[in-house]
Amino acid sequence: MAKDGLRPGGRSARVQASVHQAVRRLTARLGRPGVTIPMVAAEAGVTPSTIYRRWGDLAGLLADVAVERMQPDTMPVDTGGLVTDLDLWFEQYAEEMSSGPGRDMLKDILAAGPEPDRMARCCGYTTTQLDHILDRAAARGEAVPAAAALIDDVVAPILYRILFGGGPVDAAFCSARIRLALARDGQPQRQHRTP
Amino acid sequence: MAKDGLRPGGRSARVQASVHQAVRRLTARLGRPGVTIPMVAAEAGVTPSTIYRRWGDLAGLLADVAVERMQPDTMPVDTGGLVTDLDLWFEQYAEEMSSGPGRDMLKDILAAGPEPDRMARCCGYTTTQLDHILDRAAARGEAVPAAAALIDDVVAPILYRILFGGGPVDAAFCSARIRLALARDGQPQRQHRTP
Repeated sequence: MAKDGLRPGGRSARVQASVHQAVRRLTARLGRPGVTIPMVAAEAGVTPSTIYRRWGDLAGLLADVAVERMQPDTMPVDTGGLVTDLDLWFEQYAEEMSSGPGRDMLKDILAAGPEPDRMARCCGYTTTQLDHILDRAAARGEAVPAAAALIDDVVAPILYRILFGGGPVDAAFCSARIRLALARDGQPQRQHRTP
Repeated sequence: MAKDGLRPGGRSARVQASVHQAVRRLTARLGRPGVTIPMVAAEAGVTPSTIYRRWGDLAGLLADVAVERMQPDTMPVDTGGLVTDLDLWFEQYAEEMSSGPGRDMLKDILAAGPEPDRMARCCGYTTTQLDHILDRAAARGEAVPAAAALIDDVVAPILYRILFGGGPVDAAFCSARIRLALARDGQPQRQHRTP
């Protein structure tokens, strides 16, 4: 909604909310292959042209709904240390992404192609969560890499294994990748932030 | 073809070749959204049920054709050193995968879901090429990581950026990832091979 520069709760926001809800209801009821834009429009009480104008096609709409679902509903648990915070967060992340619903989310997002604004929101959720963990660690005086280093070193291999196979994404794999990321010289340095 | 355990050039192999060729012709002529299984069957001179029986659905067929296209037609260039071999190979890999046809291949492969045999062939092509570079380096007496380490450290972040955005996959990015991967603390050790 914010991306439209519109006031939250405005007409555009209400349209998006009801269309997203219609997609979730219909896919739950009929499964994704059974859903069409005219069905979504009827369920949401808008015209099909409203949906085509705003989302382009069904793939774009499904991808937006999937990105919404990727938005975490809690901030990362504070275990008191960087490594244990990352172990816990990534174990849950890998579990969610490799689950049936997680794979469907990834499939919907990728099927629509890399639309920059959507991908920025999608990756933004992960970066925000990691920065939260890294800020806490930095405040405790721990040395921390840039979130970008954790994306390349941990997030990317986890998603590669989920999308292309080639190995489990269990706690052992995640913690090995986390320790590699934290041990490495030559990582992108984190911007210093004034609190 | 080999995966079917059939003699190359056998009936099954000929069916696969003509169906794949029909897909390539039709997608080139009409674009992927325009192609249907009955059209492919007509173009290939087989019955639609032959295609449904063997590939399940259009997504599975398009994914198989895409995996075929990922098969490299040359072995990696020998520049005389591990780092320069990897720099050259990954620069070409990133260029190909981020091109329009490369993105279409990835999209087709991912749309069909992680069918283990298909994914094994797909990732196998990359592993074979990397092992070829690593074997040459080991034969020169250079220290080499496991191909799996290069998949996690270099291939995965390249594909993450291509699929989810979040940065260029230029030569600078590839060579930075390669150098991180070769600084080997905590990397999986490569199995020693008797020549």
